[in-house]
Amino acid sequence: MKLSLIAQRIEGQIIGNPDVEINGVKEIGQAQEGDLAFLLHPQYLPYLRTTKASALVVGLDFSGDFPVVVKVINPYKALVQVIELFPPPEISFPQGVHPTVILGEGAKVSPQASVGPFCFVGQGSVIGPKSRIYPFVYIGRDCKVGRGTTIFPQVCIGDGCEVGNGVIIHPGAVLGSDGFGFVKEGESYRKIPQIGRVVVEDEVEIGANVTIDRATLGVTRIGKGAKLDNLVHIGHNVQVGKNTVIVAQVGVSGSTIIGKGVRIAGQAGLAGHIRVGDGSTIAAQAGVTKSVPPGSLVSGYPARPHQLAKRIAACQAKLPDLFRKVKRMEETIKRLEGKADE
Amino acid sequence: MKLSLIAQRIEGQIIGNPDVEINGVKEIGQAQEGDLAFLLHPQYLPYLRTTKASALVVGLDFSGDFPVVVKVINPYKALVQVIELFPPPEISFPQGVHPTVILGEGAKVSPQASVGPFCFVGQGSVIGPKSRIYPFVYIGRDCKVGRGTTIFPQVCIGDGCEVGNGVIIHPGAVLGSDGFGFVKEGESYRKIPQIGRVVVEDEVEIGANVTIDRATLGVTRIGKGAKLDNLVHIGHNVQVGKNTVIVAQVGVSGSTIIGKGVRIAGQAGLAGHIRVGDGSTIAAQAGVTKSVPPGSLVSGYPARPHQLAKRIAACQAKLPDLFRKVKRMEETIKRLEGKADE
Amino acid sequence: MKLSLIAQRIEGQIIGNPDVEINGVKEIGQAQEGDLAFLLHPQYLPYLRTTKASALVVGLDFSGDFPVVVKVINPYKALVQVIELFPPPEISFPQGVHPTVILGEGAKVSPQASVGPFCFVGQGSVIGPKSRIYPFVYIGRDCKVGRGTTIFPQVCIGDGCEVGNGVIIHPGAVLGSDGFGFVKEGESYRKIPQIGRVVVEDEVEIGANVTIDRATLGVTRIGKGAKLDNLVHIGHNVQVGKNTVIVAQVGVSGSTIIGKGVRIAGQAGLAGHIRVGDGSTIAAQAGVTKSVPPGSLVSGYPARPHQLAKRIAACQAKLPDLFRKVKRMEETIKRLEGKADE
Repeated sequence: MKLSLIAQRIEGQIIGNPDVEINGVKEIGQAQEGDLAFLLHPQYLPYLRTTKASALVVGLDFSGDFPVVVKVINPYKALVQVIELFPPPEISFPQGVHPTVILGEGAKVSPQASVGPFCFVGQGSVIGPKSRIYPFVYIGRDCKVGRGTTIFPQVCIGDGCEVGNGVIIHPGAVLGSDGFGFVKEGESYRKIPQIGRVVVEDEVEIGANVTIDRATLGVTRIGKGAKLDNLVHIGHNVQVGKNTVIVAQVGVSGSTIIGKGVRIAGQAGLAGHIRVGDGSTIAAQAGVTKSVPPGSLVSGYPARPHQLAKRIAACQAKLPDLFRKVKRMEETIKRLEGKADE
Repeated sequence: MKLSLIAQRIEGQIIGNPDVEINGVKEIGQAQEGDLAFLLHPQYLPYLRTTKASALVVGLDFSGDFPVVVKVINPYKALVQVIELFPPPEISFPQGVHPTVILGEGAKVSPQASVGPFCFVGQGSVIGPKSRIYPFVYIGRDCKVGRGTTIFPQVCIGDGCEVGNGVIIHPGAVLGSDGFGFVKEGESYRKIPQIGRVVVEDEVEIGANVTIDRATLGVTRIGKGAKLDNLVHIGHNVQVGKNTVIVAQVGVSGSTIIGKGVRIAGQAGLAGHIRVGDGSTIAAQAGVTKSVPPGSLVSGYPARPHQLAKRIAACQAKLPDLFRKVKRMEETIKRLEGKADE
Repeated sequence: MKLSLIAQRIEGQIIGNPDVEINGVKEIGQAQEGDLAFLLHPQYLPYLRTTKASALVVGLDFSGDFPVVVKVINPYKALVQVIELFPPPEISFPQGVHPTVILGEGAKVSPQASVGPFCFVGQGSVIGPKSRIYPFVYIGRDCKVGRGTTIFPQVCIGDGCEVGNGVIIHPGAVLGSDGFGFVKEGESYRKIPQIGRVVVEDEVEIGANVTIDRATLGVTRIGKGAKLDNLVHIGHNVQVGKNTVIVAQVGVSGSTIIGKGVRIAGQAGLAGHIRVGDGSTIAAQAGVTKSVPPGSLVSGYPARPHQLAKRIAACQAKLPDLFRKVKRMEETIKRLEGKADE
């Protein structure tokens, strides 16, 4: 494929030879002749001298030296578009329902769906067209899986749970495990039965080994377009709003309601029964103990408005100095007191 | 079922019509006519105006306005009792040992147990009566699973591990992975073979994607009635006491001994080779670096007695003020010194 | 086996009867007559009085009272050597490729490898000699697994990923899930296709339920001899250096480069696009937001040089005192000002 064709697709401006032949896309550090590479981060600038890529996609602010570049507004977006020009990888298992699959009574798999070897689909469950279910997936009874959804190996979807259209669920994720609820009886705990379910709306992506508990009653809901990274924990009855992004290893305790367009960075923790307002951002490792209003930016433990948290962190770094200074002041005051009392 | 019957079962006092017909239990936000709903948290008070539930179970302190309520001492406990009045959901796979199950030599499954499709039970392993093993469960050699235990899909139980009676293990949990132990040899590490095992006592509940490492030698033990939430990590040779509750994403390093009736909140981390005394509470995200005596309440990093940690946190919030104040004091002192030296 | 033989193997000095018969190795708390036990930590000293072990391996500094001890430089290393004297446990499934295994077109399994029941090996994938693949393992298309590698149950290895020789992958680990990358389009997010792969070099160990994302382009690499504990998350395009040790529940964000011989303690988090220099140590629960030079020792959030972080932590503990002191000083200054103005 000629570079000029690609540049047209990504609305980029070529500086250099537009007739260069491109055979594939590679990372800048590994690209060979015939590859198109992307400069996605200033960190990769040193590769400019060593890469063998035939052309480089760069941002508008690029001022480096390279024989052939394509300038675009957003190199990440261009990457998405370029990758889509090349054919997608095929699935690793045959189309259709594999003969080893066990279907419960009344389970319905669309003839356009693929269910790989060693899957289990419980009674009354439904799998929509163009969905692809990888090997070793467990789908309980009375579940719904929509259209065009991909479920990777070893995923577990518990009884009664619903997964929408265009959803991607990565390996080992668990939807519909019991919520963590007990009543104390003397020294020991009695389980509160968890009879609610999990609903995952359209276009959600769920990372590897994520756990999403079913509601005690009602629904634990992951809103349309939300993206959950690996090893995230979502407690029972949590509501995650539309287009909310939750980075790896975040934990959300039971009954918390997260608004739309929220961003939660890695390893943050949210207490139960709180609300996170629309459009808020929660920094990495923050511990959110109280509700935060829409548009908040919080960090630290306990989580505070980020500007305050930053000022506090700056103060902390100067604490040893402050202690020394206060000690000196104390001595000076003593001396002054002595003089004053003379 | 008449409301009066339910009220009798949960020892509640009806205010309103006792003859209302109840067909099921739903969350207050989704309840319809014929449903009984529960007011489990003040957060749900706004639903009082909109819910279509036919009756509401509330705490003794409830003073809101609703046509039919049942007042009880503990609404959560009442919920447990009410749910038990309705029939439990059936398992999604047939009773008995599914023909696809692979049993090693000398493995024994009680004729009253159910083992679902695509399970593996190694040589010499034993599964007790009324236990239910969901699909894709791996049980190694010489394991024991007790009576009335439920093991959800994709659980792995390594060689030689023991699981007691009435245990629940959620999907994806791993019992008996190797402890993390190495000896340094020059620049590299040599593995210390892990030949101990994991013992899970009766009535334990283990969350989804939990990992419990086998002991180097001896036993990693989860005591009777302990409850572990999702994504918890338990290192090799750890001992978890009876009725101890460990919330999601907590990590416990090797050889640490946790007492009875301890509560560890989400994302807390415990160092290795320490002791947590009986009845202690560890706050969310705490980093416990030293042993704590029985009945402790600790928080923060490094974990300190909670009252102190709270005072410190309150001071931290005022640090920017303190720095400004000390600066002003410094100037005043300088001025005073000038005067004193005049 | 006579104790003298064992002592010779571990280069230890026997104090007591060298002819004691040893039949096995047990933890000091559970050892019986005929067992050799190890004193691996001062925590176990109280067992000296109660253990029934026939002999005890101890460090050179041991000064306690026990009938038969073997003094060695490193008891952990001695443990490794002693365990290797006894035969290793056999695998729980038959040798060879189990008849239930599904092999894609062109997949090649060495006749010296074992692949357990219910495994899936995709098109064009290769499994080397003496490797052991436990049940329920999913290996995608065009993967390579080396020689002498052990893959425990329910592991997922995505398309195109490579695993070297002598690697151990514990249950539930996921290699090759998609990196977490999106481009914002209005309110919603569009997925950046992840077409790179994961390469795990020789002698790596990967813990249970670990997740390692494939690169967007190029390779996410786990260097030779690296050891990853349970529930670790490795983002897309991360490079982990040789002989680096990463403890449980650590999260590493995308494109971060970790050097050789680095040690990262439990629950630490690393931001994306940073570098951790060779030989550095990162303390438990640290939040590393910036690159750190080789040989660093950092802790806290945000991570700082450990000596500074310790001084800051010590200051924090004294903050309530400092606030009281500053208040008193303020009053004294006011009084002095009053006098000065007289």
